[in-house]
Amino acid sequence: MARSPFASVGILGTGLIGASLGLALKRLGSPPRVIGFDISSDSRRAANARKALDRATGNLAEAVRDADLVVVATPVRAMELVFREIAPLLRPGTVVTDTGSTKRQVLAWAAALLPPEVSFVGGHPMTGRATAGADEATADLFDNAVYCLSPPASADAKAVEQVVKLVEMIGGVAYFVEPDEHDGLVAGVSHLPYVLSAALMQSVSADRGWREARSIAAGGFATATHLTEGDPRMFADICLTNQDQIVRQIDRLVSHLTELRGMVERRDETVFDRFVEAQTLHRQWLAGRGADDETRPALATEDIKPQSLFFPSRLSNVLRRGDKDKD
Amino acid sequence: MARSPFASVGILGTGLIGASLGLALKRLGSPPRVIGFDISSDSRRAANARKALDRATGNLAEAVRDADLVVVATPVRAMELVFREIAPLLRPGTVVTDTGSTKRQVLAWAAALLPPEVSFVGGHPMTGRATAGADEATADLFDNAVYCLSPPASADAKAVEQVVKLVEMIGGVAYFVEPDEHDGLVAGVSHLPYVLSAALMQSVSADRGWREARSIAAGGFATATHLTEGDPRMFADICLTNQDQIVRQIDRLVSHLTELRGMVERRDETVFDRFVEAQTLHRQWLAGRGADDETRPALATEDIKPQSLFFPSRLSNVLRRGDKDKD
Repeated sequence: MARSPFASVGILGTGLIGASLGLALKRLGSPPRVIGFDISSDSRRAANARKALDRATGNLAEAVRDADLVVVATPVRAMELVFREIAPLLRPGTVVTDTGSTKRQVLAWAAALLPPEVSFVGGHPMTGRATAGADEATADLFDNAVYCLSPPASADAKAVEQVVKLVEMIGGVAYFVEPDEHDGLVAGVSHLPYVLSAALMQSVSADRGWREARSIAAGGFATATHLTEGDPRMFADICLTNQDQIVRQIDRLVSHLTELRGMVERRDETVFDRFVEAQTLHRQWLAGRGADDETRPALATEDIKPQSLFFPSRLSNVLRRGDKDKD
Repeated sequence: MARSPFASVGILGTGLIGASLGLALKRLGSPPRVIGFDISSDSRRAANARKALDRATGNLAEAVRDADLVVVATPVRAMELVFREIAPLLRPGTVVTDTGSTKRQVLAWAAALLPPEVSFVGGHPMTGRATAGADEATADLFDNAVYCLSPPASADAKAVEQVVKLVEMIGGVAYFVEPDEHDGLVAGVSHLPYVLSAALMQSVSADRGWREARSIAAGGFATATHLTEGDPRMFADICLTNQDQIVRQIDRLVSHLTELRGMVERRDETVFDRFVEAQTLHRQWLAGRGADDETRPALATEDIKPQSLFFPSRLSNVLRRGDKDKD
């Protein structure tokens, strides 16, 4: 089994992602020592209950001073303070990464606040869990998950390579993406669905008749409102650091919804064609995901070409295994 | 085990609901004979493959001429033609019900087209399955499902009682609701979520960057677009027979979404409170559903008070077990 490129890992924030990372690292052949920090004793307790860490601490310095990798897994807006606090504590050569849901702001904070002797590589695992908290942490959270990586242009190639190796060892698929592009892409496929789910829950429950409607609401409503179980702090931070892209996605959605509204209002038979089209698009998307899973090779560290680690062009910015297949 | 109030049942439309009803009837102590009609030989084949029926036929007369209960389980807009076709074939005293997702239009067609010697009781099981087709039919589809019943004011009390008994024997919970109110309630909790899901799929997949976004879209997007797997014909018919209520629900949703958009645009910290509120509302709804399940008694036919079968007032129009608890 492959060796971890890091001997000692500090995980800051022991929620679902942080605790799952701890569990995923534990199943490696020669796992690194993992110390988790969380400001909340409840969160530390939950991570301990899941046996996700070698040690949980409320002392930030303890979690980072011996680490050769520090993973910041807090909500996005806490990262500014975390970077500021850990900056004087990090050893030169330490690799720092994050798991935040937006990247533009995080990279800006990292550039401004982390010392030049450490290497920052932005990250965002697309694990797709609605719920939050270490209680649901699981070692296989990252299995086959796309793991976005946004190293700054100045990133050290070896540090990037090590983070890629780590991502692959925990089961993820590294996907390089520029921070602005990342934030645009996830605004549509992740942030908008959450905002819609919250708006739907509020709109329908504020309507006359909710007292009756709540009794007859069934699986469809449960599905459509399920994402409200996401962490409100996490999504508020997302909205407050990715406002332009989210507003743009809401406007696009409202425009499509308004078109459907018009068809419904005038009893336009072709609304059927729209629904068939939506189903077809959905199935094409799912089928593409399935094909991805089947063709996903195990990528060994030796195959990584450092020159392909940065951003060649928008068009070639596909899953790295895609790059490899074309070699 | 209770005896079915009907000896012979004709099910018109052997999709998910029709075939599941066949299976649910089969598990009764003394099951009725069930003949299913479908215009599509594929649908008949799928229902036969699931062993959902005693006999599947493409001949409408064969399915209804000996039936003492006829269940119309086609998409809503096919019901007009079905009522017209079966009207001359039904024996006097036959009970006719439907499983359509809207009720106002269906009751109007039934009143206009069915002969006065048969008893019509509108119905709508809230089974909450996104997918369509007999392939996924299951005997427990109706277990603990709210089953809306909308008898016309002129309905025969005994026929209503028999339909209630049937609903309960297949595991459902009878819920009386006036057709207009029904259509208003389901517009918010069922029709709007589907339309939103379709609009989201179309909006996001038509955006620049979809080629990349589709690769990183994960569980959140899958959840939010899952309802597009519903039957496009069924939902088109819903939109074309419940247009006013659906338009009203879309307008309400857009208004809530626009408010959230404003908060995101001006980076309003209180967006966090909105998300907490949405999560709280969601949990309250789920908790209410859980409590419902636990307190749901088996309701025997003897407990049914014919005078309570019609619509006393909006406020007392609660789940019938609720009425019973208060007796």
